[in-house]
Amino acid sequence: MTIKQDKLEIMRHSTAHLLAAAVQSLFPNTKLGIGPVIENGFYYDFDLPKAITEADLPKIEEKMRKLQKQDLNFSKSELSLSEATKLMKSKKQDYKVELIEQIKKTGDTALADEEKDITTSPKTPIDKVSFYQTGDFIDLCRGPHINKTSEIGPFKLLSVAGAYWRGNEKNKMLTRIYGTVFATQSDLEKYLQMLEEAKKRDHRVLGKQLGLFVFADLVGKGLPLLTAKGATIRRELERFIVDEEIRRGYLHVITPPLAKVDLYRTSGHYPYYKNTMYPPMKVDEEELILRPMTCPHHFMLYKSQLRSYRDLPIRFAELASQFRYEKSGELTGLMRVRMFCLADSHIFATTQQAPQVINEVLDLIEYVNTVLHLKKGEDYRYRLSLGKREDSSKYYKDDAAWDRAEDILRQVLIKREAPFYEAADEAAFYGPKIDIQVKNVLGKEETAFTVQYDFVMPKRFDLKYIDEAGKEQEPIVIHRSSIGAFERTMAFLIEKYSGAFPVWLSPVQIVVIPITSDNNSFAEQINRTLLDSGLRSEVDNKTGTMQGKIREAQLQKIPYMLIVGRREEEAKKVAVRTREGQDLGAMKIEDFIQQIKQTIESKALI
Amino acid sequence: MTIKQDKLEIMRHSTAHLLAAAVQSLFPNTKLGIGPVIENGFYYDFDLPKAITEADLPKIEEKMRKLQKQDLNFSKSELSLSEATKLMKSKKQDYKVELIEQIKKTGDTALADEEKDITTSPKTPIDKVSFYQTGDFIDLCRGPHINKTSEIGPFKLLSVAGAYWRGNEKNKMLTRIYGTVFATQSDLEKYLQMLEEAKKRDHRVLGKQLGLFVFADLVGKGLPLLTAKGATIRRELERFIVDEEIRRGYLHVITPPLAKVDLYRTSGHYPYYKNTMYPPMKVDEEELILRPMTCPHHFMLYKSQLRSYRDLPIRFAELASQFRYEKSGELTGLMRVRMFCLADSHIFATTQQAPQVINEVLDLIEYVNTVLHLKKGEDYRYRLSLGKREDSSKYYKDDAAWDRAEDILRQVLIKREAPFYEAADEAAFYGPKIDIQVKNVLGKEETAFTVQYDFVMPKRFDLKYIDEAGKEQEPIVIHRSSIGAFERTMAFLIEKYSGAFPVWLSPVQIVVIPITSDNNSFAEQINRTLLDSGLRSEVDNKTGTMQGKIREAQLQKIPYMLIVGRREEEAKKVAVRTREGQDLGAMKIEDFIQQIKQTIESKALI
Repeated sequence: MTIKQDKLEIMRHSTAHLLAAAVQSLFPNTKLGIGPVIENGFYYDFDLPKAITEADLPKIEEKMRKLQKQDLNFSKSELSLSEATKLMKSKKQDYKVELIEQIKKTGDTALADEEKDITTSPKTPIDKVSFYQTGDFIDLCRGPHINKTSEIGPFKLLSVAGAYWRGNEKNKMLTRIYGTVFATQSDLEKYLQMLEEAKKRDHRVLGKQLGLFVFADLVGKGLPLLTAKGATIRRELERFIVDEEIRRGYLHVITPPLAKVDLYRTSGHYPYYKNTMYPPMKVDEEELILRPMTCPHHFMLYKSQLRSYRDLPIRFAELASQFRYEKSGELTGLMRVRMFCLADSHIFATTQQAPQVINEVLDLIEYVNTVLHLKKGEDYRYRLSLGKREDSSKYYKDDAAWDRAEDILRQVLIKREAPFYEAADEAAFYGPKIDIQVKNVLGKEETAFTVQYDFVMPKRFDLKYIDEAGKEQEPIVIHRSSIGAFERTMAFLIEKYSGAFPVWLSPVQIVVIPITSDNNSFAEQINRTLLDSGLRSEVDNKTGTMQGKIREAQLQKIPYMLIVGRREEEAKKVAVRTREGQDLGAMKIEDFIQQIKQTIESKALI
Repeated sequence: MTIKQDKLEIMRHSTAHLLAAAVQSLFPNTKLGIGPVIENGFYYDFDLPKAITEADLPKIEEKMRKLQKQDLNFSKSELSLSEATKLMKSKKQDYKVELIEQIKKTGDTALADEEKDITTSPKTPIDKVSFYQTGDFIDLCRGPHINKTSEIGPFKLLSVAGAYWRGNEKNKMLTRIYGTVFATQSDLEKYLQMLEEAKKRDHRVLGKQLGLFVFADLVGKGLPLLTAKGATIRRELERFIVDEEIRRGYLHVITPPLAKVDLYRTSGHYPYYKNTMYPPMKVDEEELILRPMTCPHHFMLYKSQLRSYRDLPIRFAELASQFRYEKSGELTGLMRVRMFCLADSHIFATTQQAPQVINEVLDLIEYVNTVLHLKKGEDYRYRLSLGKREDSSKYYKDDAAWDRAEDILRQVLIKREAPFYEAADEAAFYGPKIDIQVKNVLGKEETAFTVQYDFVMPKRFDLKYIDEAGKEQEPIVIHRSSIGAFERTMAFLIEKYSGAFPVWLSPVQIVVIPITSDNNSFAEQINRTLLDSGLRSEVDNKTGTMQGKIREAQLQKIPYMLIVGRREEEAKKVAVRTREGQDLGAMKIEDFIQQIKQTIESKALI
C-alpha cells in the first residue's frame, strides 16, 4: 500500500462502508458504485431501486447508528480476480464486476475505489484483489480500514446528488450520498456550522437574492447574464485594474476573441487543448475558433513591428474574453463557466530582466489583494509549481531552461520573503509557474490564477528583439493575471464579503428612505444630489413602513440608508444608518458626500 | 424608362461607354462586363486579354480623348432578344450573352447595366432590348445617353481594381476601371483635390502611420487587433458613453456574445440572417452561435423578473460584441469588419411613453454628436425610414401598428424641428426607424446607426408588464445605438480628425522633448509629474535633434510638445508647443496641467 492516508481519512472511508451497508440493508437490490474519501468527508454512489431525497437521510443515519452499535469488525480477505468476479456476480453487483474487469486490464487497484488515480505504484499485472466485510456487507476495497465500527466518530449525512457512473455522461446517473465524520463532536459541529455559513454565502444564492446575474435556457449553459447590478461590480473591478496596470506601465490592447485554428496549431495548443475548445467555424476558406487563451494574439501584436532591447520589457495587457468547454455537470454559477474574461497579460523581456519583471508582477498582485482585503500568508500564499523533467510528453524538453527558470522564480520568492511552498508536476508545458493560492469560505485553498515563465512559445512564434550589438535575440514571456477571471473573482468576492461589498463595489451605495410620503419630494431631491455627485443612489418611495424599508435595504446589503423625515427636512439634514445597523446621526448632505467619497477613494469596506 | 437620372449621371454613363470603346480599341478581344454610374463617377468591368495597372490609365485616357474628338454620336437601336444574342455571340461578348439570358428570364433590363435593381417597373416579359453605338463600339444598354461625345465634360480615370463578375466570388475576377467626369474643369479639380485629401485621411493609412491597429494573417480577415494607442481611443469612447448613459438612466448590463441558435429561431432572425451569421457550434447537446445582434439577450434579461408599469421605461444598454459575416472583398480596415462592438440599447416602454423615450434617445445622440464636433443639419441629419406595407415578406403585417409607429416617429422629428427626410422601403421588418445619416470625408452620407421602433419582438418573446389595473400588457421596444459600433466610429473619427484627435481622445497627449541629453533627467521628471496627474505622456530621449523630434511629434499628431532646455530647467518651466506649430510660451508645469485638464474635461480639440 503506497497511499498515504491519515487516521481521519481511514475513518471516513470506513464510514462510507457503513453508509453502503445501511443503504443496502434498507434498500435491498441496491447496486454499489464507488465510495471514496473527499476533502472534509466522503460519498458513496448507489444505483437504487427507488429514488430518494434528502428527507431519507435521517432514516439512513439511524440505520448506520444501529449497525455501528453492533461493533462490527472490518475484516479483510483476498480473492483471485476470477473468484472476485464470481462473488460480485452472485450479488448482482454489476459495477463492481466492471471495476474488477478494469483492474484486470490496467493492473491498477486505485480504480476500484476512486475516480482519480492516486497510486504511484507501477502498473504491473495483479492476480488478487481485497474485500472488506462488515457484518453482512462486503465490498471490493483496497483499504485500509479501522478495526471496528465503534471506532467511527460522530458522523452526519449531508446531501444527495446525481452523478454519472465513472463521471461519464453516457453512463447511468447514480445517486450520490455525501457525508462527513470527525473525531470529536465539537469538530463535527464546527464543520457543520461552517457549511451552514458557506451555504448562506453561496454566490449562486446571494447572486439571486441581490439580483446580480441570471441564466437563461435559451442562451445556454454556463453563460451568465450580468444584470445592471452585477455589471456595476464588474465595471468597477475592470476600471480599477486597467487604471492600475496602465499606471504600472502596461500597454492595454484589444484583440478579437477568436482566430484561425492555425494560430493555435502554431502555438501547439491545438490539438492538445482541442477537447476544451469550442468547435471550429468555417468562414469562407478560413477555419476560425473561439480562443481559449490570449497569448498567441499578443504574440501577433509583438511581431507586428521590430522590437529593440530598448523597448523591453513590453507589457501587453487585456481584458480578454476566453472560451473553454466545461462539462455541463461541472458548471457552477459564476465560478465555472464556459466563457470568461481574464485580466490577462504577456510580458516580453530579456532573461536578465525576468527577476525584476516577476517582482513587479507580484507587487501588483499583492497590491490588488490588499485592496480586496486579502492578507498575505493568511488568506493567500504562493505555490511554486515545477515541471517533472522526465515526462517529456507533458513538459517541453530543455533541462537547462527549466533549471534556470525554476531558479529565477524560487529566488524571487525567497528574496521577497513571500510565503510559498513547492509542488512537483504542476508546471505549464512551457515552463514553471507561481500559483496564487487563495482560501475560499470553506477554508479550502484554490488556485486563483498564475504567473508563468515561458521559454517555449517565443521559439514557436519566432519572437525576436534586437540587442545592443544589433543581433537578434529571443525574449522570454511571462504570462500572468493580476485579478484573475472576473467571473470567478466576482463569485469569490460575493462569498468573501457575503454580499456586503465595500462601498466602491456596491451596486447601490445609498438608499434614501422617506419616513412618510410627505417626505418623498425631499428624498427625491437628496437622491438627485447624490446621483449628480456620481454616487449610486436610489429612493425607496414605495408604500410601506420605514422599518420595513430599512430591513429591505439591509437584506440588499446597501451600505448606507439616509432616513429623511420632517425633522431632517427642516434641518436640511439626513439621518445616516449603515447596513450593519449603526446610527451615524444626522448630518448635512455635503458632509455625507464628502465622507462616502473618502470611503470609496480608500476602497474601505464602509 | 422609369429611372430618374440627372444630366451629370447621363454624361457619366456615356463616359463609361467611351472608356469601354477606348479599351476595346486598345485591347482587342476584351470582353465587356457592365459599366454603371456610381456616386461621383462611373466604372466599367472588363475581361482583358492582359493584366493592366494604373500606369496604363493615361494611355487609355488619351485614346478616350481621341475618340471624343471625333464627335461620335450615341445612336440607339432595338433588337429582339434572339437577334441581340446573335449579335453579342458574333462579337464573343459572353457576359452580354449571359445578361440577355437573364433579361429573358426576369424581364428586368435593369440587370443589364447595373448590379443593383434600381427599376420600379413591373417585371413583365419583354421581347426587345436596346443597344447604343458610338463609332465602332456597340453596347447592350438601356440608356439614356447624351447625343454625342463632344458633350462629355472634363474626365479622369482614377483607379484599377479587381471585381468578381456579378459580385460573386465563384465567378471570374474582372478588371474594374474607375473614372469620373464633371461638367466643368473646376468641378473636376475640386473633386480630385477632395479625393487626394481623403486618401491622406484614409483611416487605414493613418491607422498604420499612427500605430493604432494591425491585422494578422494568423488571426483572420476582418478581425483587427488594437494596439495600446488604438485601445486608448476605444477605452475613452467606451467610458464616455457608458458614464453618459448611466447618468441618463440606462442600466448597463453584460451578456455573452453567443447563445443557442434557438434564441435566434425565436426572434425570427434565423434562418433569415443565417447567411450573415457565423456557423453554429455544437457543444454537448446545445447548438451555439455567435450573436449578430443583442436584442434577444436583453429580452431574456427583461423576462428574468416580473415587470410593472412603475418600472417602465427600462433601458438596458451594453457594449455588445457582435459577429457578422462580411464578404472578404467588402472588408475595409475598421469600417467593415467581421466582429464589432456596438454601444447598444433596448428600451422597454408603454406605447404612451414612446414619444418621450425617442426624444430622450435623440437628445443623447445629439449630445454625443456635439461632443464629437458634428453639427446637426450640416454634418448629419435624420432619415425616417418607412415600411412598404404591401410587401409582407419583408415587413411584418400589421397596418395599424405601422401607422401608429410611423406617426410617433414623424411627430417627434417634426416637434423637435430635427432636420430629416423620409425614405420608403428602408424600415426594419419589425417597425419603422430613424437613421442617423452622417457625412464622411468625401461628403457622402452614410447611415451611422439607427433608432428602431419595434412592435413585433415583444410578441415573439411574449414580453409583458403589469399595468395599473394589474393586467398583463405588451411593451414596445426601442432598439438604438448612441455612438454606433466602436470600430466604425473610430474609423470615422480617424478620418474626420485626420488623426489629430481632440486631447481627451489622443493616445499620447504630451511628449516631453529635452533640447540636449543634459536635459534628459529634467524631462523624465516632468514626464513623471504628468503621468502621476493621470495624463498620457512620453519622453523623447532618443538621440536626434530637437527639430527632428518636433517634426516626429507633429507627424504622430501629439497635441502638446513640452520642450525643456537649460533655460527651462533653471526657471523650472516648460516651453509649450502645439501640433499645429503654435508656440504657447514657457509656463510652470502645474499651470500647463491645469490648462490641459480643462481642455480634456471640455473635450475640446486642443
